[in-house]
Amino acid sequence: MASSLIGKPFNAYRAVDGKLTSTPSTIPSLGPSDVLIRLTHSGVCYTDYEFFRTGLPLALGHEGVGIVEAVGSAVSTLKVGDRAGAGFGRRSCGHCRYCLTGKDIWCYERVTYGWGDFDNGTFSAYYVGDEAHLFKIPDGLASEDAAPLQCAGATVYTALRDTVKPTDRVGIIGIGGLGHLAIRFASKMGTEVVVFSTSRDKESEARGFGASEFVLLSELDKVSKPVDVLVVAGARYPDWSKVLVKEVLARAGIIIPLPAPTMGPLVLPADNLMWEGYNVHSSLVASRVPHTEMLEFAARHKIKPTIQLYKFEGAETIKTVFDNLENNKVRYRAVLEF
Amino acid sequence: MASSLIGKPFNAYRAVDGKLTSTPSTIPSLGPSDVLIRLTHSGVCYTDYEFFRTGLPLALGHEGVGIVEAVGSAVSTLKVGDRAGAGFGRRSCGHCRYCLTGKDIWCYERVTYGWGDFDNGTFSAYYVGDEAHLFKIPDGLASEDAAPLQCAGATVYTALRDTVKPTDRVGIIGIGGLGHLAIRFASKMGTEVVVFSTSRDKESEARGFGASEFVLLSELDKVSKPVDVLVVAGARYPDWSKVLVKEVLARAGIIIPLPAPTMGPLVLPADNLMWEGYNVHSSLVASRVPHTEMLEFAARHKIKPTIQLYKFEGAETIKTVFDNLENNKVRYRAVLEF
Repeated sequence: MASSLIGKPFNAYRAVDGKLTSTPSTIPSLGPSDVLIRLTHSGVCYTDYEFFRTGLPLALGHEGVGIVEAVGSAVSTLKVGDRAGAGFGRRSCGHCRYCLTGKDIWCYERVTYGWGDFDNGTFSAYYVGDEAHLFKIPDGLASEDAAPLQCAGATVYTALRDTVKPTDRVGIIGIGGLGHLAIRFASKMGTEVVVFSTSRDKESEARGFGASEFVLLSELDKVSKPVDVLVVAGARYPDWSKVLVKEVLARAGIIIPLPAPTMGPLVLPADNLMWEGYNVHSSLVASRVPHTEMLEFAARHKIKPTIQLYKFEGAETIKTVFDNLENNKVRYRAVLEF
Repeated sequence: MASSLIGKPFNAYRAVDGKLTSTPSTIPSLGPSDVLIRLTHSGVCYTDYEFFRTGLPLALGHEGVGIVEAVGSAVSTLKVGDRAGAGFGRRSCGHCRYCLTGKDIWCYERVTYGWGDFDNGTFSAYYVGDEAHLFKIPDGLASEDAAPLQCAGATVYTALRDTVKPTDRVGIIGIGGLGHLAIRFASKMGTEVVVFSTSRDKESEARGFGASEFVLLSELDKVSKPVDVLVVAGARYPDWSKVLVKEVLARAGIIIPLPAPTMGPLVLPADNLMWEGYNVHSSLVASRVPHTEMLEFAARHKIKPTIQLYKFEGAETIKTVFDNLENNKVRYRAVLEF
């Protein structure tokens, strides 16, 4: 590592006294498995806004992509000049049954954005990550598109790959940051995608993303056949008593409530669950194997998020994006360009 | 079929104007795939009592075991004199993706106890079943013990075989008709069984059934290690906010709420579900393959329910059992002997 980099100052952005604030940081000397990335892009996720609102004093941002600037002495999978992405998962033990079976996101020693690492955000010029939790960006995937894939893409891809067969019909509720990517990934997996929405206005876009059927939540009886898996990707739970019926979700079907914490308790009609055999599958961003698969799958099928690009000019830019998220004006993922 | 049997009268027991009533029935001539069973035993399940209380005018009983008395012209898997069990599942289409993959309990054309067949109860001298939904009782399994296995045994076995590995730790809440069998089956599957209970009084019995750890629900912090699968077999849901934590249920663990309909809505803390990766698995009695496996597994490992045997003397006997169910006096399954 060039000694001129050590101690170089840059800014991190945090909630300080409820205000989004630029705070000084410096590049540390790297440990053996550390990698220094000069960020070129970061997605802005609703979770960033949530963490900001709770006042957690962490360096914000967890959908980063950039160029490897320096590597620790033991790093073997990335080299200076590579493009790499990272942000949500920071460390895991590497030895437990979760880590050893590709389910490291459930490792009891996991360190993630918001838990255990408060000093490394992607709303920054630099990010230091453990080699084992960084992801090489495949050629053919633009960095600005790869950024939102680090969380939103990983989240929907993992949920789908763990539950669907290519022959399934997949229902998706909510056509936002997660939902529009879920439609794209699911349709490229070979499934038949049915979008459920509150508004007919969304139909043409949904079909453009890859949906082959569009059903209003107020007209559930119009669905042509039940779906096998139902991904709730929007900001509200549906009326479960209307959705959890065998004409809408096939018996023994699976529901996946993705952005759960913003929605309060999950209140399910137990009768429907039992008599129709419905299952609830929980999913959290991604372990490393599905994360890597996701990037390769996206590159192969030219799957990318629909983004709004913001030239980064400091805290004001982040505030603008947060305002747009609050006012539901982001179509469909915001990306900062450094 | 001996012509003397056709038209032979017997009694079925139903709710009529809210009262448990003996109603006349007769043996029909058998269709090609029908099998006439002279019942020797029937379990009494809380579901029978529930159906009676709702006033559904169906012939009650769904945990029957008896002797094959006559078979239809096309029957090939059972012969006169065989012992057979049946009761909950009555028919399925045989052609759909559920039927063809051993998941016939989810067949959209399924006919079950309480849905589609109101004339065939097991609180009776006779039961007519479709060959495809009858189960030969293995040698070594007494008929009185095999009766409660037709529903309670099938229910817990299926839930476990679909979710647990032999190396898992399995938590069981509720030590009643279902729970005591769940402990026995789970321990013979090689798992480590942890019983969670409200009362220390149940400990020695739970250990006798095969539990290796016993934890009060009021002292959940005393569990030695998290369980991987949690079966809710009792009459109440636990406090999910206390149970769905990583010290009690391992990350990515599974909950199985068995007797759901008597419990009202399932209200789960969505945060815990997402951050710890918990899944909800629904299960309903059993499809035919696991039902058959269950009987063979029970015979192999000498698993039997703990029963109270009631010599059947008409409606009064059923009323007595229903009273005992109502007053929580059945330890652990009631069986009528005809």
